[in-house]
Amino acid sequence: MRIKNQAELERWLAQSKATPVLPERRAADKTKPIDPSVQRRIIGLDTALRCTGWGMIDVRGNQLKAVDCGVIKNSPKAAFSDCLRCLSSSVRELIELYRPNIAVIEGGFYCRNVKTAMVLGSARGAVIAVLAEAGIPIHEYAPRRVKQAVCGFGNASKQQVALLVEQFLAIQVDKMPLDSSDALALALCHAQNLTVAQGHGISPEI
Amino acid sequence: MRIKNQAELERWLAQSKATPVLPERRAADKTKPIDPSVQRRIIGLDTALRCTGWGMIDVRGNQLKAVDCGVIKNSPKAAFSDCLRCLSSSVRELIELYRPNIAVIEGGFYCRNVKTAMVLGSARGAVIAVLAEAGIPIHEYAPRRVKQAVCGFGNASKQQVALLVEQFLAIQVDKMPLDSSDALALALCHAQNLTVAQGHGISPEI
Repeated sequence: MRIKNQAELERWLAQSKATPVLPERRAADKTKPIDPSVQRRIIGLDTALRCTGWGMIDVRGNQLKAVDCGVIKNSPKAAFSDCLRCLSSSVRELIELYRPNIAVIEGGFYCRNVKTAMVLGSARGAVIAVLAEAGIPIHEYAPRRVKQAVCGFGNASKQQVALLVEQFLAIQVDKMPLDSSDALALALCHAQNLTVAQGHGISPEI
Repeated sequence: MRIKNQAELERWLAQSKATPVLPERRAADKTKPIDPSVQRRIIGLDTALRCTGWGMIDVRGNQLKAVDCGVIKNSPKAAFSDCLRCLSSSVRELIELYRPNIAVIEGGFYCRNVKTAMVLGSARGAVIAVLAEAGIPIHEYAPRRVKQAVCGFGNASKQQVALLVEQFLAIQVDKMPLDSSDALALALCHAQNLTVAQGHGISPEI
């Protein structure tokens, strides 16, 4: 990720065409069955009310492959309930389209403000309810643990995380919103615990 | 509500048979159309992760009538995601069964702890997402405002609220969990603003 300054990052974010489900992609993918050699398909979700990043990876033995990623964006003017409705229905569409069998979300982070915690909690609640209704087991990792797994140290920046995600998955993450590279990092963190450490470091299901 | 002490209240809560949807009631009610004279059917929801109270009332001009109420209970041992799944699917069943056209939830309350705010926010998020997906407008009232509307003063106890709900709706609330009388009070608060104050005091949709 080659971000020189905040203005450039914001321009990229604004230009980003990543949407949760593009109709043409959706129609095409629905006819395409999932490769049977895929042992696990993991969806990582970096939840927030206005911009939720998502990233999907496939695990085949020790091989990890990015499937797709994007952001679920809500306009700053959208009503609170509309944001939750959009979040909920978009995650349901993603599940229907990609059929992941494990979900990973961010958890255990520090939030100073009670009001912010309530809003963030609402977004998480809407997403977790949809995943749970689809019968997908959900794992939670603290941001520090994700950074440690992906970058080797817990206080890496979002840009450093994106760079390492790019290397791990051999993808080009330029112009990808940082929320979706964070979501891929969440999925990667769980996949690493599954494959490298023979499951010893896997966080329990929530 | 004639509650002498906490132990008695807890015994009542434990004995309560109120469940979100009883199969026999569900089957019977599905065949029964909603009375066309009903102008508005309001669902009040007092959301929490382990015990969410709900209450449904019908508004016909200045007349208010209780339809049903109950609690959505989750075992203290149930996993977090299971609680949200149950909450989400139970609210969806209630909507399907009773077809309310307005929802009222508690909001603007003070929560000291960030972790508690996050958990409570999750329960609210799961419920709001389901209501919004069903296209039901959602209004939010602070507990103080509900107590003022129902009891005439903002620091009424839960027992006093239950007593006034009993009087307003001419129902017997003995043995009813306080969470469901709180939910009926939320619906009543909105109904009062609709009918008595000609809509001047209605909280905006969230």
